[in-house]
Amino acid sequence: MTWYLNEAKKYDTLFENKAKDYQLSLTKPPGSLGDVEQFATRMSAYQKSLSPELSNIDIVIMAADHGVTEENISSFPQSVTAEMVKNFANGGAAIAVLARSLNARLTVFNLGTVTEIPETDGVIDVRVGNGTKNFCHEDAMTYEQCDQAMLHGKQAADWASFNDCQLFIGGEMGIGNTTAAAAIASRLLDVSVEEMAGPGTGLDPTGIQHKINVIKKALAHHTSLNPLEVLRTLGGFEIAALAGAYIGCAQRGIPVMLDGFISTAAALVAVKINPSINPWLMASHCSLEPGHLHILNALSLEPLVDLKMRLGEASGAAMVVPLLQLGCKLQSEMASFRDAHVSEKLEPEMS
Amino acid sequence: MTWYLNEAKKYDTLFENKAKDYQLSLTKPPGSLGDVEQFATRMSAYQKSLSPELSNIDIVIMAADHGVTEENISSFPQSVTAEMVKNFANGGAAIAVLARSLNARLTVFNLGTVTEIPETDGVIDVRVGNGTKNFCHEDAMTYEQCDQAMLHGKQAADWASFNDCQLFIGGEMGIGNTTAAAAIASRLLDVSVEEMAGPGTGLDPTGIQHKINVIKKALAHHTSLNPLEVLRTLGGFEIAALAGAYIGCAQRGIPVMLDGFISTAAALVAVKINPSINPWLMASHCSLEPGHLHILNALSLEPLVDLKMRLGEASGAAMVVPLLQLGCKLQSEMASFRDAHVSEKLEPEMS
Repeated sequence: MTWYLNEAKKYDTLFENKAKDYQLSLTKPPGSLGDVEQFATRMSAYQKSLSPELSNIDIVIMAADHGVTEENISSFPQSVTAEMVKNFANGGAAIAVLARSLNARLTVFNLGTVTEIPETDGVIDVRVGNGTKNFCHEDAMTYEQCDQAMLHGKQAADWASFNDCQLFIGGEMGIGNTTAAAAIASRLLDVSVEEMAGPGTGLDPTGIQHKINVIKKALAHHTSLNPLEVLRTLGGFEIAALAGAYIGCAQRGIPVMLDGFISTAAALVAVKINPSINPWLMASHCSLEPGHLHILNALSLEPLVDLKMRLGEASGAAMVVPLLQLGCKLQSEMASFRDAHVSEKLEPEMS
Repeated sequence: MTWYLNEAKKYDTLFENKAKDYQLSLTKPPGSLGDVEQFATRMSAYQKSLSPELSNIDIVIMAADHGVTEENISSFPQSVTAEMVKNFANGGAAIAVLARSLNARLTVFNLGTVTEIPETDGVIDVRVGNGTKNFCHEDAMTYEQCDQAMLHGKQAADWASFNDCQLFIGGEMGIGNTTAAAAIASRLLDVSVEEMAGPGTGLDPTGIQHKINVIKKALAHHTSLNPLEVLRTLGGFEIAALAGAYIGCAQRGIPVMLDGFISTAAALVAVKINPSINPWLMASHCSLEPGHLHILNALSLEPLVDLKMRLGEASGAAMVVPLLQLGCKLQSEMASFRDAHVSEKLEPEMS
């Protein structure tokens, strides 16, 4: 059996319930910390501790180019993928600023930019090709390329596990990858291309309509419903790597904070390949990309915030880390009614 | 002229626009950091700097008791106000954990618990009475009490200014104060009591209906539309102190992050008293208390997050501080397209 079919580590629902009970003992009206409280109890279950902690965080950006950019589906030139990889390494990109502020490890995997990039600090050269092929006419990847890209993702998870990582954040960079993600998600879900395709980095309505037509052409060409085949024929190296990373994290018991549209599309493929990983996924934010919500719904995930972000590169996932950290601190450090000598509620809640 | 009518410091719209232009030069699709970017440009305007910074934060909790608790409008006993004040001081309350995690100064003003509390570290005893009177039958405060409570709020703002505070967060503690806040907001806005009154710390539907009846009785008794009179007759000491603090902050040029329902009701009164303060107010979260959104709309404020919180004590405002800090860091530290040699967008956006 191939590695990605192995069962994920079991999610400890009993411990989550124990944490929920414990929350009731803390000096606040029951449930009054809302979503933050929910996420803290999940962290409790992941760590099997009533005092969950979140300081050891891996942020891994998977970067690759897309053949479908030939079809003019992006408002930025393809060269930006490689330029941004350097910007990650040099500390000037949004995710570099965020990782530094959060004291998180940031690693960039170059899965396949069209041109080689010299290996620099923080960028790991694991190119499996000079970008994918244009999936309007060909399979995006060969079998070997898709396998390799997924395996590189698993290696990122293995590495995170070796570092005792408490939260894995996978992000992406790849001009054209909202087109690939929309194609994948339209194929795997019962959602039309019109609902799934959005402006990406900033297409106007004419550009979006063109993108829809391109995706429809690709879906007519590649008709398999097998999630691995969907990934291989319509995906990107970075999407395959993210799917592999998410599966690897769940197998090793590392919770994952998803980012936006592309990250969540990669998670969708991963869950379709191996449904046991679902409990290890958390949703951070709701992207402005309209298809994101459809995929989140399919995964039964509710995002913590909606900040109208649409940047990718793990920025939305990184943004919610402090909320999760504060949730963990609150659960770990708040006093109980008994210890603080605070009177409890007068009567049981009826609603 | 009384102090609270003095104009607020002028908000620098020109600098906000300069910051928005600067954001366009950073290596990301225009606007792709969403609300976080908006808040960063506001911080720029407040600080007149393209590299805004947020590390010096004052959190002040105003605590007081409410005579209207006689009417059984809360699911917690009145003794909880004083018990929680001690819990703030001892570090076990949610806001104490949050302030510690954020490295913010936390100060508690006891404006008037029904019984005296020995002054301890971090609690300032400025009691203006043994709680307010039951506003179903009497004015909640005397003129002197309301003036004094507002003045204590101004002193908190003065103190924050003396400490070069970059963000002021005012919170509250007072069993019964969602009833007072709903009464104030219903009177000042064209919103029915039914839409304004909610579960507070956890009333069931019968309890909420009773609370609505109590508020209607109070509104029939106190009919003035003058915001100061509304505050005096229907408010609470802590609500008056918050209104005074918000006005004082705006006059001194300190931005304010509002918390939930009661904090925002206090801001509503403050804006009705002195409309010039409005640009110094930011909204943090949308409380589960249904009336909160009505008041936010009246103040033209959009909250940054909706975490389904309903705890009060400044917890929602504290929760968004890291988002604001990350927004400031991103604007200050991200590379520009030019400096990072990243290609810009191919064509101007049409939509």
